[in-house]
Amino acid sequence: MERQTVYDITIKLLEARKFQELKAILQEMNPADIAGIFEEAEEKDILLLYRLLPKELASETFAYIDSEQQEKLIMAFSDKEIRDVLDELFLDDTVAIIEEMPANVVSRILRNADSETRDKINELLHYPKDSAGSIMTPEYVYLDKGMTVKQSFEKIRKVGVVKETIYTCYVTEQRKLVGVVSILDLLTADPETHIADIMETNVISVGTHEDKETVAALFSKYDMLAIPVVDGENRIVGIVTVDDAIDVMQEETTEDIEKMAALVPSDKPYFRTGIFETFKKRIPWLMLLMISATFTGIIITSFEEKLSSMVVLTAFIPMLMDTGGNAGSQASVTVIRGLSVGDIRIKDIFRILWKEFRVSILCGVALAAANIVKMLLVDRLLLNNSDVTATVAVVVSLTLVVAVFAAKLIGCTLPILAKKIGFDPAVMASPFITTLVDALSLIAYFQIASAFLIV
Amino acid sequence: MERQTVYDITIKLLEARKFQELKAILQEMNPADIAGIFEEAEEKDILLLYRLLPKELASETFAYIDSEQQEKLIMAFSDKEIRDVLDELFLDDTVAIIEEMPANVVSRILRNADSETRDKINELLHYPKDSAGSIMTPEYVYLDKGMTVKQSFEKIRKVGVVKETIYTCYVTEQRKLVGVVSILDLLTADPETHIADIMETNVISVGTHEDKETVAALFSKYDMLAIPVVDGENRIVGIVTVDDAIDVMQEETTEDIEKMAALVPSDKPYFRTGIFETFKKRIPWLMLLMISATFTGIIITSFEEKLSSMVVLTAFIPMLMDTGGNAGSQASVTVIRGLSVGDIRIKDIFRILWKEFRVSILCGVALAAANIVKMLLVDRLLLNNSDVTATVAVVVSLTLVVAVFAAKLIGCTLPILAKKIGFDPAVMASPFITTLVDALSLIAYFQIASAFLIV
Repeated sequence: MERQTVYDITIKLLEARKFQELKAILQEMNPADIAGIFEEAEEKDILLLYRLLPKELASETFAYIDSEQQEKLIMAFSDKEIRDVLDELFLDDTVAIIEEMPANVVSRILRNADSETRDKINELLHYPKDSAGSIMTPEYVYLDKGMTVKQSFEKIRKVGVVKETIYTCYVTEQRKLVGVVSILDLLTADPETHIADIMETNVISVGTHEDKETVAALFSKYDMLAIPVVDGENRIVGIVTVDDAIDVMQEETTEDIEKMAALVPSDKPYFRTGIFETFKKRIPWLMLLMISATFTGIIITSFEEKLSSMVVLTAFIPMLMDTGGNAGSQASVTVIRGLSVGDIRIKDIFRILWKEFRVSILCGVALAAANIVKMLLVDRLLLNNSDVTATVAVVVSLTLVVAVFAAKLIGCTLPILAKKIGFDPAVMASPFITTLVDALSLIAYFQIASAFLIV
Repeated sequence: MERQTVYDITIKLLEARKFQELKAILQEMNPADIAGIFEEAEEKDILLLYRLLPKELASETFAYIDSEQQEKLIMAFSDKEIRDVLDELFLDDTVAIIEEMPANVVSRILRNADSETRDKINELLHYPKDSAGSIMTPEYVYLDKGMTVKQSFEKIRKVGVVKETIYTCYVTEQRKLVGVVSILDLLTADPETHIADIMETNVISVGTHEDKETVAALFSKYDMLAIPVVDGENRIVGIVTVDDAIDVMQEETTEDIEKMAALVPSDKPYFRTGIFETFKKRIPWLMLLMISATFTGIIITSFEEKLSSMVVLTAFIPMLMDTGGNAGSQASVTVIRGLSVGDIRIKDIFRILWKEFRVSILCGVALAAANIVKMLLVDRLLLNNSDVTATVAVVVSLTLVVAVFAAKLIGCTLPILAKKIGFDPAVMASPFITTLVDALSLIAYFQIASAFLIV
């Protein structure tokens, strides 16, 4: 609420061209909040707005604004402004920006970088997409094993300001990572102590080609602020910081959720994905699931003769399908999320089956009981549908029990099996399971109907 | 892989009672990894395993093991062991543990805490569930505005070791929060400088009653390592650290995913939720959605007469329902996630409708074309079903276009409307939308069929 008021005021000042007042307000604001004003501002005003900011604040703000506006700004910037931004940004942020930009913008950026920065950027761009190397920054503090605490502080004072974090320092011996030491350890140690004597040697590190999702998971497991990245010979080449790990976690969650909803995952925000691109993310699963519904069609067709003499049965097909689908998606999504946060492991499958077995009986019986009452009171009495007999109500309710039972067991099993054979469990969410459960429920429905009703 | 090998070796040593070797290995391990061994160990061995650890490592490990085992350990501990753990744990971790424990365990813990700790624990337990106060720790470093840098370092050296983070120090004046200063600022400043001259006064803080989800979102927005929590008079009472914010993010995501899958959210892991409790989380939505399927029943019943003369139409009902449901859930889940990560705002609704409108036409037409081919080649020719005429194929395909169109537009609109009126958009995911789209598609199906087929 309060933040929105500040936005409104700044936008009004901008539109009224009251630059002095605006400047005074902006100077007191946080870069992330100023980025929010850029989002609200009109396109023609963003360069103007940017130029109202003091140099350092401007560059910090640049890292927070969205990539569409970053692109526009870079194309409008003077060469000096580009250099100022590059000086101020951490290298991993620069690389993240470059990865989102079209080629002409990238070349403008690289042309203005000094040769050392350009080399480092190119090196980072070289790591595979989604690897630890692609999200790390080479800006960390390293100390030599033989240094004293006093020498270490001198080094930190000298180089610390341009490093992304100084809170953990990495100890190297012939460029190999041999330990870590925290600022707190340094502060509480005697100035003449050698680093080798106070460093922690049990270092958690990752390789440059490690999947960034695995790296992010280490942060939540070990509660770290940064993790060192090493090459094949255990030489430290960079660090991944916790703020980037948080971004990765959010991206990965989005990907999981998309897979569960039968979407091909996209790594671009909604409005940056074109119509045809969006279509391509959605059509594969829609098509596959539509074609696989041929089976339900075949099942119904084979009972067509019986159905034509008992059309009342048709009225409950959608309800049976939807309930089965919902019951299955409850189980599968629970298991998929449990696998992804580590509450559930592959070897738990029998415990899960036993639990879902009992839950499905409870759910099935409760739904069946409610359904009998509902069919006899609402469908038969209230809606006056004399075809809905007690026997029909029993047939539908028995099918419900079977459908819920099958849905829960299939729903909890498939994600675990997928994980076991190395597939992503998230694909085994509702849409896939619905198709299977639909077919099973229909077979049960017609078999039960044949047994109970003389058709 | 490697980590699993270490687990296997330690478990084997434990079972073979080779305590000396086991002890040597454990000492070199990280507490989070040792906690993994506890998960694999047999219940009768966990106290034994715990007692093999050096005191400090034991307490650190305790914070990482799961609550079921923590409970067993506390009941098996000597009073001294409980005190050792309490001494070592950060207060917010202690509070998090206490919140999971039954009353008899809680009283054992509180009985062994010294009176100061007990008061602080009680104070923290007093904050509302899900508030900033409930996840904060009172263990932060605060400095007085008038201190010099040199005095500040003396204070940090003295108290730092028992504080959860020293990397950001909070500056107070008459207990009110007036600024922050980072360790890096202190290190690079002259020792005689006053804190007031180097502190950052634009402080981002939250109130004790702020929702913890909002607090977590601030971390990813501002890239912070800790955020100060203040009372109604702007007096700092604690800090929330980034590791706890990550846990909150994960919990909130799980909650969103559960809501999308028609589950009542649970805050307990899968295996800690009892059968009846799981049933209660699942039955409300299943019941509601089942009852709401009465509408699809009514629609089918009202076309019963026509259906009985064209039973072939029944065979395609499940396919139409499922495709509509899938198309709707694609749109709704995309919008729900976009809203939650901030890519999409309420005011974007018309941009979204326009985009989904075009995407739905593309998807609908592609599916319809594929369906005509499939019905004529597979259903008519291959499966030899002479009831599937070209006209029937056209009727089904036209319905597909309408169903996908309705599903996409409803799917993208409902979550935004929900947010607009203050509901959680996540509830407007596939199950809810499926029920609506089912009814609309059936009406379209029968209207189109009546128009094209003389029935």
